[in-house]
Amino acid sequence: MIIVMKLGVEQSQVQETIDRIKELGFNTHLSQGQNRTIIGIVGDVSSIDESEVERLRATPYIEEVVRVSKPYKLVSRDFNKEDTVIKVNGIEIGGKKIVVMAGPCSVENKDQILNIAREVKKSGATLLRGGAFKPRTSPKDFQGLGEEGLKFLLEAKEETGLPIVTEVMDTRDVELVSEYADILQVGTRNMQNYALLKELGKIDKPVLLKRGMWATLKEFLGAAEYILAGGNQNVMLCERGIRTFSDFTRNTLDLSIVPVLKAESHLPVIVDPSHGTGRRDIVKPMALAAIACGADGLTVEAHTNPQKAISDADQTISTADLHSLMGEIKYISRMFGRDI
Amino acid sequence: MIIVMKLGVEQSQVQETIDRIKELGFNTHLSQGQNRTIIGIVGDVSSIDESEVERLRATPYIEEVVRVSKPYKLVSRDFNKEDTVIKVNGIEIGGKKIVVMAGPCSVENKDQILNIAREVKKSGATLLRGGAFKPRTSPKDFQGLGEEGLKFLLEAKEETGLPIVTEVMDTRDVELVSEYADILQVGTRNMQNYALLKELGKIDKPVLLKRGMWATLKEFLGAAEYILAGGNQNVMLCERGIRTFSDFTRNTLDLSIVPVLKAESHLPVIVDPSHGTGRRDIVKPMALAAIACGADGLTVEAHTNPQKAISDADQTISTADLHSLMGEIKYISRMFGRDI
Amino acid sequence: MIIVMKLGVEQSQVQETIDRIKELGFNTHLSQGQNRTIIGIVGDVSSIDESEVERLRATPYIEEVVRVSKPYKLVSRDFNKEDTVIKVNGIEIGGKKIVVMAGPCSVENKDQILNIAREVKKSGATLLRGGAFKPRTSPKDFQGLGEEGLKFLLEAKEETGLPIVTEVMDTRDVELVSEYADILQVGTRNMQNYALLKELGKIDKPVLLKRGMWATLKEFLGAAEYILAGGNQNVMLCERGIRTFSDFTRNTLDLSIVPVLKAESHLPVIVDPSHGTGRRDIVKPMALAAIACGADGLTVEAHTNPQKAISDADQTISTADLHSLMGEIKYISRMFGRDI
Amino acid sequence: MIIVMKLGVEQSQVQETIDRIKELGFNTHLSQGQNRTIIGIVGDVSSIDESEVERLRATPYIEEVVRVSKPYKLVSRDFNKEDTVIKVNGIEIGGKKIVVMAGPCSVENKDQILNIAREVKKSGATLLRGGAFKPRTSPKDFQGLGEEGLKFLLEAKEETGLPIVTEVMDTRDVELVSEYADILQVGTRNMQNYALLKELGKIDKPVLLKRGMWATLKEFLGAAEYILAGGNQNVMLCERGIRTFSDFTRNTLDLSIVPVLKAESHLPVIVDPSHGTGRRDIVKPMALAAIACGADGLTVEAHTNPQKAISDADQTISTADLHSLMGEIKYISRMFGRDI
Repeated sequence: MIIVMKLGVEQSQVQETIDRIKELGFNTHLSQGQNRTIIGIVGDVSSIDESEVERLRATPYIEEVVRVSKPYKLVSRDFNKEDTVIKVNGIEIGGKKIVVMAGPCSVENKDQILNIAREVKKSGATLLRGGAFKPRTSPKDFQGLGEEGLKFLLEAKEETGLPIVTEVMDTRDVELVSEYADILQVGTRNMQNYALLKELGKIDKPVLLKRGMWATLKEFLGAAEYILAGGNQNVMLCERGIRTFSDFTRNTLDLSIVPVLKAESHLPVIVDPSHGTGRRDIVKPMALAAIACGADGLTVEAHTNPQKAISDADQTISTADLHSLMGEIKYISRMFGRDI
Repeated sequence: MIIVMKLGVEQSQVQETIDRIKELGFNTHLSQGQNRTIIGIVGDVSSIDESEVERLRATPYIEEVVRVSKPYKLVSRDFNKEDTVIKVNGIEIGGKKIVVMAGPCSVENKDQILNIAREVKKSGATLLRGGAFKPRTSPKDFQGLGEEGLKFLLEAKEETGLPIVTEVMDTRDVELVSEYADILQVGTRNMQNYALLKELGKIDKPVLLKRGMWATLKEFLGAAEYILAGGNQNVMLCERGIRTFSDFTRNTLDLSIVPVLKAESHLPVIVDPSHGTGRRDIVKPMALAAIACGADGLTVEAHTNPQKAISDADQTISTADLHSLMGEIKYISRMFGRDI
Repeated sequence: MIIVMKLGVEQSQVQETIDRIKELGFNTHLSQGQNRTIIGIVGDVSSIDESEVERLRATPYIEEVVRVSKPYKLVSRDFNKEDTVIKVNGIEIGGKKIVVMAGPCSVENKDQILNIAREVKKSGATLLRGGAFKPRTSPKDFQGLGEEGLKFLLEAKEETGLPIVTEVMDTRDVELVSEYADILQVGTRNMQNYALLKELGKIDKPVLLKRGMWATLKEFLGAAEYILAGGNQNVMLCERGIRTFSDFTRNTLDLSIVPVLKAESHLPVIVDPSHGTGRRDIVKPMALAAIACGADGLTVEAHTNPQKAISDADQTISTADLHSLMGEIKYISRMFGRDI
Repeated sequence: MIIVMKLGVEQSQVQETIDRIKELGFNTHLSQGQNRTIIGIVGDVSSIDESEVERLRATPYIEEVVRVSKPYKLVSRDFNKEDTVIKVNGIEIGGKKIVVMAGPCSVENKDQILNIAREVKKSGATLLRGGAFKPRTSPKDFQGLGEEGLKFLLEAKEETGLPIVTEVMDTRDVELVSEYADILQVGTRNMQNYALLKELGKIDKPVLLKRGMWATLKEFLGAAEYILAGGNQNVMLCERGIRTFSDFTRNTLDLSIVPVLKAESHLPVIVDPSHGTGRRDIVKPMALAAIACGADGLTVEAHTNPQKAISDADQTISTADLHSLMGEIKYISRMFGRDI
């Protein structure tokens, strides 16, 4: 970390700054040039609280504080050079194979989820997704079946063998959802629900962490860091579209984060072209583009009858389309030395 | 609600659509023009689930679904013509007087909060704000003092008489925080933490709901609707800046939402120029602008020694500046027939 | 077009509205339901000025005006079902082959552009790009070589046979640039420089129109419509990143516009992963993703010595990397039934 | 400027960097700490081309380049401590008085502009605005009356004495528009039309520069710098709303830029609450807020019959409302020691 003092800084102010750094337990290296005085901080500053940096920045005689090292650590590629491969019921996520999580937005009833699960299985997709607890913009909208929905998912798993991905929204539900699900999903709206992230750090089930639609790269990795810091190393990062002015899609799918996440972090990267676009008609091209830029997997909303889907009908593809999509994913995966 | 059918729609498809609407319990009015077939839905459609609208939109032979009425109801000015005035320890929020909530970002220790509370009281501000549970981007940053912080706030209240505003982040903490706080704050990151909103609908303490930094007007009002639908009518709406490309401020303070919220809803509107800008040097002009466009109050970060503040040092004003700010707020309030 | 009247509208107001539509030369179809009165407009409303629609929307007794048809016409797939294939010196853009435009951000001197052109040619890329007139954020930054730069580009073309793509920024330069260039580029900052667009409508050279970093889909197509309306049908649409809050890339490359543009319009679609990301390290994955979601071509900044490039050094790949990129593009193109 | 080298940099690389800086004509100050090597650059680096900084950043062994000084100079408050006051026909802009520019979006015909001008005069507003050359999203929309419109504006000026503000869009029209107008406006879409900015640098008429809806603070000031660098010091900076995800307004009016522009630059700051919101119903509160946070003036769309306005009907207030707005502006101006 480097502190650039303002022009005309007084010696006493330089000393005061050096003293503040020493109080934090670090040594300094002073450089007084013709124009500028610069204080370098010696050692691993990743333990310095971000608020301490803010305080330094807010000091009137300090021009700028340059934090060269990253504010996250455990999720970082510097910390763990090897790709993290997460194992779920014999499936590897983040390894050679591309994983595809498919299923309806919401679990609606037993027949619906069983029928869809069978089609998902047939298509060659590797996991079953479906919501039992649903975040909905309006309180009068369908809120999900709750535990009953989890039971239906489990039945579908027992019949098809597909592991289950489902969302958890409340710290009080983490234990319950863990009993049923193979992967717990944190939705975009809860990416910085720190109480929930801390709770998920305590369990041993893998977590699919969706990027907040407002989140910078740093904030996204910071959220994952919460879960790893709690002791749970099995986190997948999921790009699902961000909020921008652009209005022909529901969100703007930010695929460029995929290669950057793969470089910055050792965690697997999943892309959600359904929420990321909100448009069924472009789910396939965006799914293929996601694989082409390096994603380890996809999560896709699919339904046997999309127009009757209880939620997200606009962006849900038919299970027939899922079959054809899986064929193309297989083909493009192999081009990149991977497979499904 | 109006359904516009695609050009060349078949009679059987029109009938199918009419049947779907009837299944929802509504009558229709059919209009077959030279070019277009339009189906009008008769009656109060506010009870129709948003997902039903999505399903209609996703139907291949439907061009567009126009929902003229609003998806929220209880928060709406149509539902309650009179301004909601929330009473907290004899203070009225949303009434004639402008309220100012001031205090540090975090409660750091007993002396700090007591000293600041005394200055807040002297300045003429009406409530004391301060965080005991802190949402922080990194897990290694200071997370707040928890219940101990709440106790310090209570001591400050007992000495100064200032009611307390503090954040709650976890459904499991709602009861605890309610015991100490006069107003419970929902932070921007939790605006769509529906489990938390539902829990806050069950209590009788007022709630300060901060706008999600990604939230549209409709989503913001939808989040408030969750609390009102649960039975708690005492909600304040707080604009605190949104995420945009603009980088000279931490967030972009969207003051234009103030007059629109006052027109659309009966709830009090508060503005946070500290988080809304992230810059101490422009807190004052933006605070005055907020009053000029109709805000009912402000929440401002103030500290006796901003450069030593544990968090948000960049945007915290000194209590000395708070004194001068209160003077200007008084002056501008009166211009608009209000006061402090 | 459909006009939804407000609840409680008076008969005289309905008649007034009908009269306004008739003045515009259209017939109406009136539908008076139990709740709502709706006026349908009969015929091809695409000739109605957008401002007329605004005026209707601003009328106090009108609730909403739904314009079902699109505000652009000539660029639309409805107007021309067949893909537009643009021919430039025997190269087809928008046909079976993927085109790659490569070269430096700026033409710096004769040797530089000749050396780079030779490498571009060897790599298998199909066109040479390079700026002679440069839009720069600061007036003291290098503004380009002007006509001398165009001459150097022409020499490079004569030696290598590569057609030239270069930017034009001023209506007064259109004639000059047309004498040298094979394709005239409109930069992102000039996407709604209507004077320039109109001038480009009058020439017969193809135009590469870059999306404004603030532009919606509708605005982008509206800008292209200006050129087509002037008589020049040879327009390529280029996605080059939009302005969002996300800060790990210079812009956010919005690849989802690629399949949507291909569906909405008959014009060829080009992607610029260099400006679209501002990061050399992810140009390759994003280039491949662009092809995977349906782009007809790419424009890529390449330099024999990127670190010495006069502009855009951050995002320029080496010509060595261009060679390897071309190999991968060839491979992925064939997967999609295309080629280079 | 400070260059932070990567960890483990070699001595030869440090020397190479020092040599590059010396080639640019600057001395360096080397600081080799325990962890980091830092190279400080001695002297006024504001003359260093931004592209040179980019090249340094793109160098593999350089971690970061910190440019402490600002990339713009002439527009900067550091360069000119005193507020620039622009005189137009005896009116001072940027002085004690708040100026209000009012009038229709477009000049439609002689009667329209004369009638509106009379009302503008009566209301106490100080300048007449109106478009003769109109930037329109679609080529079939009304493009303005051109020179005829300028003549009508001149007649309105002759009758009322109100100076004229009108937009120029094409370098070839600068001379013509200068003959009629007192202030030339650069629209948001042309903020980085550098050819136009350079042309405006050569004339002596004041320029009202609107912020690009995508422009950062730095880009906005950089655009103004172009005009000042050409020799024309009379530039006003106009905030008119930026592109964000928020959809209840046409643009998001970024009032927080007002106090920041006043601190960073000596140029007058104008706010446009009409385009900044796109909503007639909130023009007044946002106009007052603009004054409250320090704007030197406003530009407001007003029409004798807004519903018949040829363009921007949604956001145009009536001249009757303009009268009442002027009364409130007078009142709030005085509160801030100003007047109208």
